[in-house]
Amino acid sequence: MLHNVTDLLKVKYPIIQAPMAGGVTTTHLVTEVANAGGLGMIGAGYMSPDQLRKQIRKVQQLTPHAFGVNLFVPNEFHVTEEEIFTANERLNQFRRKLQLPEKNTVEKPDFNDLYNTFLEQIDVVIKEKVPICSFTFGVPTTEVMDRLKQHDILLIGTATTVKEAIAIEKAGMDIIVVQGSEAGGHRGNFLQSNDESMVGLMTLIPQVVDNVSTPVIAAGGIMGGRGFMASLCLGAQGVQMGTAFLTCLESGANELHKAAILNAKEDQSVITRSFSGKWARGIQNEFISSMRANEHQVPAFPVQNSLTKDIRKASANQGKTDFMSLWAGQNATMAKRQTVRMLMESIIMEAKKLGFST
Amino acid sequence: MLHNVTDLLKVKYPIIQAPMAGGVTTTHLVTEVANAGGLGMIGAGYMSPDQLRKQIRKVQQLTPHAFGVNLFVPNEFHVTEEEIFTANERLNQFRRKLQLPEKNTVEKPDFNDLYNTFLEQIDVVIKEKVPICSFTFGVPTTEVMDRLKQHDILLIGTATTVKEAIAIEKAGMDIIVVQGSEAGGHRGNFLQSNDESMVGLMTLIPQVVDNVSTPVIAAGGIMGGRGFMASLCLGAQGVQMGTAFLTCLESGANELHKAAILNAKEDQSVITRSFSGKWARGIQNEFISSMRANEHQVPAFPVQNSLTKDIRKASANQGKTDFMSLWAGQNATMAKRQTVRMLMESIIMEAKKLGFST
Repeated sequence: MLHNVTDLLKVKYPIIQAPMAGGVTTTHLVTEVANAGGLGMIGAGYMSPDQLRKQIRKVQQLTPHAFGVNLFVPNEFHVTEEEIFTANERLNQFRRKLQLPEKNTVEKPDFNDLYNTFLEQIDVVIKEKVPICSFTFGVPTTEVMDRLKQHDILLIGTATTVKEAIAIEKAGMDIIVVQGSEAGGHRGNFLQSNDESMVGLMTLIPQVVDNVSTPVIAAGGIMGGRGFMASLCLGAQGVQMGTAFLTCLESGANELHKAAILNAKEDQSVITRSFSGKWARGIQNEFISSMRANEHQVPAFPVQNSLTKDIRKASANQGKTDFMSLWAGQNATMAKRQTVRMLMESIIMEAKKLGFST
Repeated sequence: MLHNVTDLLKVKYPIIQAPMAGGVTTTHLVTEVANAGGLGMIGAGYMSPDQLRKQIRKVQQLTPHAFGVNLFVPNEFHVTEEEIFTANERLNQFRRKLQLPEKNTVEKPDFNDLYNTFLEQIDVVIKEKVPICSFTFGVPTTEVMDRLKQHDILLIGTATTVKEAIAIEKAGMDIIVVQGSEAGGHRGNFLQSNDESMVGLMTLIPQVVDNVSTPVIAAGGIMGGRGFMASLCLGAQGVQMGTAFLTCLESGANELHKAAILNAKEDQSVITRSFSGKWARGIQNEFISSMRANEHQVPAFPVQNSLTKDIRKASANQGKTDFMSLWAGQNATMAKRQTVRMLMESIIMEAKKLGFST
């Protein structure tokens, strides 16, 4: 049995570009990472099956190397019409500031629709022969897992605690990404509360590797060769990096988002659930502080995410970061504006100084 | 100028036993650490000058090696009589459960008394020729710093953010301990809010070392050679370990406290300010959950700490962990019951496998 992640992933370096959803993982980003020896990932959480199919085909045209797709496992949510009404009322203050029409509707995403989209995404992954598929927010059903395994797709789960890592191993995944409290964007916790899931990588990695036999990849706050080597010392076999790739020239993140990270101060990193209904780490702004008092009351993911979509979009279109979700890890102050190739080379150079050899 | 921490600290290994206050750092613990090649520290935060003098002399009789003393820099607090009255009313529910007399008094520690005790502790450190003195909760005045420096005492500050690390460097300390969000016991933040100070070591260490020239020691969640080597990769010159030493046979922690750590589950690690008025990490128990709803309202440190003293003490005396402060890091599940020598040897053995050489 292959247990070395570079063999499993068929990459030169055990460095995964985090599958950031929402347009960050352009074809250019994914293929540049793949061509530089890492694993490029398409963050397909919010993509339609059609969009996903198209991007997979483009990536395949531009690189002969392995790459992966990340999907969100849909979680059931229980949101009442009244909660949506109240949430929209609170959000109207931002809509007014952005000259957007107010909303007093109570439309909400339908779980069955979301689940069907997820199954269609799985079909696309299989039909387009994507070699690697990772999951966030849980573990798919046995049926889905079996189908993917029958097609020899390498499966990666995301855990924030030992308990979640064990559940992922039991489900039969090939690799476990452990997400530390340092990580930017959405928390991947699915069995434990957000508070319970806020474990720093310094303790999370060794606790997980001591309790599973599946290879572990570390994610959260890793910006270069130092974090890469530290993760290997702690027992991980590789790293997954988000923020570091987000500010790269090839990333599709909004330029305002990139600039906010490049100018971030250390005390601006906060955890909020106001944007989406799930806890996520980003850079403090007016939206987060205004919503702070009520953030425990906002509708669950993905309902709140749908409700805030017009606000986030208008904020970006109007050149304001005040109401955008500026996801970033606790490492934001270390981010650089550079090409993927420069980033990959600097990671490897720094790691080699610390004893890394391929 | 000496910049290597093993030279600065005059130790074989750059491993500091964290100066846990409240009776944990027995003379036996401190001297065993010193004799095993690490730096033993007396946690003197709550000690009278007399107690401190006596312990220093005992330590000096039992080891020829360097050791240190840790002091709490007193912070001014603003607490009204009404707040104390309300706090005592809330605490009376626990006193009744423990058959303790209820309290409706409004006595509070006097800042000037605390500050005078601090100055007397400084005098003891100087007169007893303690080679190393570390500080938590801030930076002493220039006057105190100058006196200590005139006596060639090596000074260590504790930071939780880059901003605090820079302040410590500016104050003229020789070494900076950076405390990650993983750490057990009290948060050492003094310039920034607790939320702002909850930074994982994976991002805190590189951000600090990139912004100061003073040697950095990493603290928080480090349990053995893996965490030690990871910290070195990230740019620290050594580590400070608390929980790992707390469960050692030589530690003076209450046996119930040790057992609670040795049996801890990963999801029991919580941050609370209910015991002392300062945020601290420990193992979840009835006291913490009962106080959760009001923890933002408890009087500031050290007032709440004085108010809960009878409760914590009676809980321990009655063999119950329900109302004790069970400080521990996010690494509690990795703790072992062992001697200091066994712990030190296992750290070094594990570190050597990862390439460490003295």
